[in-house]
Amino acid sequence: MKKNILLAPGPTPVPPSTLLAMAQPIIHHREPEFKPIFSQCREGLKYLFQTEQEVIMLAASGSGAMEAAVTNFLSTGDKALFVNGGKFGERWGKIMKAYGCEPVELKVEWGQAVDPAVIEAALDADPSIRAVYMQASETSTAVAHPVKEVAAITGKRPGVFLVVDAITATGVFKLPMDEWGIDIIVTGSQKALMLPPGLAFIAWSEKADTFNKTSNIPRFYFDLALERKKHIDDQTAWTPAVSLLVGLRDVLNMIREEGLEKVHARTTRLAEATRAAVKAMGLKLFAPDSPSNALTAAVIPEGVDGLKVKKLLRENYGVTVAGGQDQAKGKIVRLAHLGYTDTFDVISAISALEMALVDAGHDMVMGAGVAKAMEILRRG
Amino acid sequence: MKKNILLAPGPTPVPPSTLLAMAQPIIHHREPEFKPIFSQCREGLKYLFQTEQEVIMLAASGSGAMEAAVTNFLSTGDKALFVNGGKFGERWGKIMKAYGCEPVELKVEWGQAVDPAVIEAALDADPSIRAVYMQASETSTAVAHPVKEVAAITGKRPGVFLVVDAITATGVFKLPMDEWGIDIIVTGSQKALMLPPGLAFIAWSEKADTFNKTSNIPRFYFDLALERKKHIDDQTAWTPAVSLLVGLRDVLNMIREEGLEKVHARTTRLAEATRAAVKAMGLKLFAPDSPSNALTAAVIPEGVDGLKVKKLLRENYGVTVAGGQDQAKGKIVRLAHLGYTDTFDVISAISALEMALVDAGHDMVMGAGVAKAMEILRRG
Repeated sequence: MKKNILLAPGPTPVPPSTLLAMAQPIIHHREPEFKPIFSQCREGLKYLFQTEQEVIMLAASGSGAMEAAVTNFLSTGDKALFVNGGKFGERWGKIMKAYGCEPVELKVEWGQAVDPAVIEAALDADPSIRAVYMQASETSTAVAHPVKEVAAITGKRPGVFLVVDAITATGVFKLPMDEWGIDIIVTGSQKALMLPPGLAFIAWSEKADTFNKTSNIPRFYFDLALERKKHIDDQTAWTPAVSLLVGLRDVLNMIREEGLEKVHARTTRLAEATRAAVKAMGLKLFAPDSPSNALTAAVIPEGVDGLKVKKLLRENYGVTVAGGQDQAKGKIVRLAHLGYTDTFDVISAISALEMALVDAGHDMVMGAGVAKAMEILRRG
Repeated sequence: MKKNILLAPGPTPVPPSTLLAMAQPIIHHREPEFKPIFSQCREGLKYLFQTEQEVIMLAASGSGAMEAAVTNFLSTGDKALFVNGGKFGERWGKIMKAYGCEPVELKVEWGQAVDPAVIEAALDADPSIRAVYMQASETSTAVAHPVKEVAAITGKRPGVFLVVDAITATGVFKLPMDEWGIDIIVTGSQKALMLPPGLAFIAWSEKADTFNKTSNIPRFYFDLALERKKHIDDQTAWTPAVSLLVGLRDVLNMIREEGLEKVHARTTRLAEATRAAVKAMGLKLFAPDSPSNALTAAVIPEGVDGLKVKKLLRENYGVTVAGGQDQAKGKIVRLAHLGYTDTFDVISAISALEMALVDAGHDMVMGAGVAKAMEILRRG
């Protein structure tokens, strides 16, 4: 018997009550019993996104909504700036290229956040740029990018819209769509929304809507204007992922009950404890200057094999974390603290990491990390 | 207390054991525990499709795979014939149009099957037609189209491939992909696969693959060549719908255990009983000549309001069936007998329909339908 603990930045653990809600007999999406579920999801998502716009629910993973954020708002040949500071930033460029747009890459060193002034300068230098695509939280590097500051820049330009991949940001930290003037927000179900993967979400501003009306990129399954028309009638264009929507209703109710600010505060506290604990055990943070509260990337000490640490975490302790991707492969482990996560998930993660490091041959005294986490997490 | 019975042609009921399998704690799709699940799904799908080709699993509903069947194989400006004998046939044309192809419509009267000779004549008349898109089972009319005969026609033409929407055909009746030479088959999770909606499947022949290699339509989320490369390594390009895949492994095992021929035979028996019962109660079949074994469309008698019958079925008896769409609205009810369905689902459907017809003011003696169904379903 070994309990498995999932502490990767998505899929994240699903609350048992939600798992059971989704295990109820399936209902039909064109019948009256679907309406209140869908309608509560619509309301809950508006609250979560902090928007008065309709939030579209797609039967797809987050990448589907990322594609929709390109194909429904840009046109062939359109220039769009994208912040490439990791695997997910890079994806914006790939999608634009696939659909015949002209991506303008803004490369940011892995582990660093984008400098809003560089975005402003790029927009000033090329007035033909139509949009800025970025991540609020770059999951591959554990960096939070300065969305509010970038939104202030794009907000002043009527011809430029801002697209934010908030897949590991929504429900993690403050990102009020309407208040900050974010034009398009994309998120997925398997992160702070505490659901299995299979649902993606997207909302857009009135400014972005004018671009939608002139966009000429072909689309069918991800036709957002059609979906919005259907959503307003508590329907979807294509068969929705009914069981996941039943779960969505459930987790959105949980978030509303706890209150978004409290959810953010809880996540922040867990993030701060994790970061402090990682430093207390003598490790460096991969994103020291602008860390995302969704996850913490700890740099594996010189001479220790990061892939081995990740393997030992799983094999010796049943703890699943994420490793590094591409240039960070074998160099970092990423510990998640978003969604259905609390004090003892962090304590477990830190203690498992300390033990696995020693197992991997790292010379250290165990306990400093856990003690630091306890110091922050104790409710006095 | 009223038990609800779902007898619509999708979503269909999910076996309780599968619901509970999907309620297990979520696992991570990039970790070793995912591999055997995915690998068993791959094998089970090949058996289900009766193909040696890879069957791709998409996090999307069936319409997503229909889109993929257009965007991955046709090119802009390509002519393709599509059989429009109902709502789903019509959809092929819409997708082609959205992506700049030239759909050639072959209209078929609702309730009728396409005549293969007409397809052959159309292909002879216009050698620039690249493909034939059709339904194996047109869910809106309860018609089965003659796939085998059409495949024999396209099979003789190296420049023409055949695409079959088998969303309510796979796991319902015989449709051996390789043996019949069907080039592309598309299906979804919420029909005979007995799962919630949210997964779509597509496989293609070597002939179709040559078209994939030259297809110029932009695609990203539904990039089948990329997905196939990933699938072979037991992976997916984007985050898969993990919990639904756990359910998929489960239902595919059930189907293999029962045996595909027995699944087809069971469904056929239920379909025959339903059709005979509908006729025994004095109703006509909407698709008398080439009915699909997935579902039966019963024509509501003159003077009776079909919408009211459907409503009474739900309100008085807790039975959910499908009504008619578009030109068939209010004129038919559609009773499903695919997937997780057995004798007493049919008995319930027929008895509910008899009672609801009387409730709606139809002058008839109840019991003839049920008696006929029992005659066929009794195991002597």
